[in-house]
Amino acid sequence: MKQTKYTGPGIFVLSSPSGGGKTTLVKFMKKKFSAIVYSVSTTSRPPRPGDKNGHDYNFISAEAFRKGIKEKNFVEWALVHGNYYGTPSSNIKNALKKGKSILLDLDVKGARQVKKLFPDAVLIFITAPGIKELSRRIIARGQDDMNTIRRRLKNAKEELRQIKYFDFLVMNDKIATAQKNMVSIYGAELCKIKKV
Amino acid sequence: MKQTKYTGPGIFVLSSPSGGGKTTLVKFMKKKFSAIVYSVSTTSRPPRPGDKNGHDYNFISAEAFRKGIKEKNFVEWALVHGNYYGTPSSNIKNALKKGKSILLDLDVKGARQVKKLFPDAVLIFITAPGIKELSRRIIARGQDDMNTIRRRLKNAKEELRQIKYFDFLVMNDKIATAQKNMVSIYGAELCKIKKV
Repeated sequence: MKQTKYTGPGIFVLSSPSGGGKTTLVKFMKKKFSAIVYSVSTTSRPPRPGDKNGHDYNFISAEAFRKGIKEKNFVEWALVHGNYYGTPSSNIKNALKKGKSILLDLDVKGARQVKKLFPDAVLIFITAPGIKELSRRIIARGQDDMNTIRRRLKNAKEELRQIKYFDFLVMNDKIATAQKNMVSIYGAELCKIKKV
Repeated sequence: MKQTKYTGPGIFVLSSPSGGGKTTLVKFMKKKFSAIVYSVSTTSRPPRPGDKNGHDYNFISAEAFRKGIKEKNFVEWALVHGNYYGTPSSNIKNALKKGKSILLDLDVKGARQVKKLFPDAVLIFITAPGIKELSRRIIARGQDDMNTIRRRLKNAKEELRQIKYFDFLVMNDKIATAQKNMVSIYGAELCKIKKV
């Protein structure tokens, strides 16, 4: 009996409203587990100073992106403020082929698209304990003007309604607890008996 | 938004062929988590010297057991060598009502019966890395004569075929790894978004 017949690497999608603390947890998981590959998104937006191609994003032209859409190369994609953003399916397939798990950082819509194509994908929703705490965090990080803050909070409320589509909820109240829960979800998935 | 609306305590069933190391892991989990209640089975077999009623088993008469079966008080039961063994449904219901998780130590048949009545139950199969190692352990503990060993190994092979009915596989190769995986499965379950 081989363990690999029954269990193996997984697809982990993290979603979170602004202020949920997703970025910190993504960094933590990337650093902690060498068996996790992070899915770098592809975009048609021009690189900004400091952006590293292949690290922050894979930068391609809008034309190349549209070609990729036609050829169904993206497991999920969206057009945001005139720029394309998306996840190449090859990100997922290459990781799994190498026996690695893959971590994707996507919005709720993207997460649901991944689940459609990969029903085994583990969708994790990360959030602060409530809208009040979310507001506090968004305001505290001081990156946004009032209009942006209002928009972010509106989106956050909308996203909270979609928790039901997710498999796990990680309440990012205390960062240590949230990290421990992320590790548990990852560890449990590796023991999961996949129905093939 | 309350976390408890989405996540909460769980039902954990551990099964294992002889030599899989289930007993050690059950003890570990009981000791580590005060939020886990252990399900004490009911039996009609007479107590042996040292058996503590309500701790090792709840000892009742065969007649009382049969009455319980008729009244559908058992979530699973079996007649083994003329004695009844079973799990009162109240064990599970009482634990969950108190917001506790419950840990059941059952054979494969019992585990599947629990899953039928409680589809959310998490079935965990614990095993040594292979039949060879199982044989070694069963022989090493020196409790059994050759016929019993043969019977145990035959049962183990039979049980290994039933892994597909389980949710998780914990390979009890190194005890520390097996413990860590048990903790992960338990931790992940508490974050799980229950579809109600």
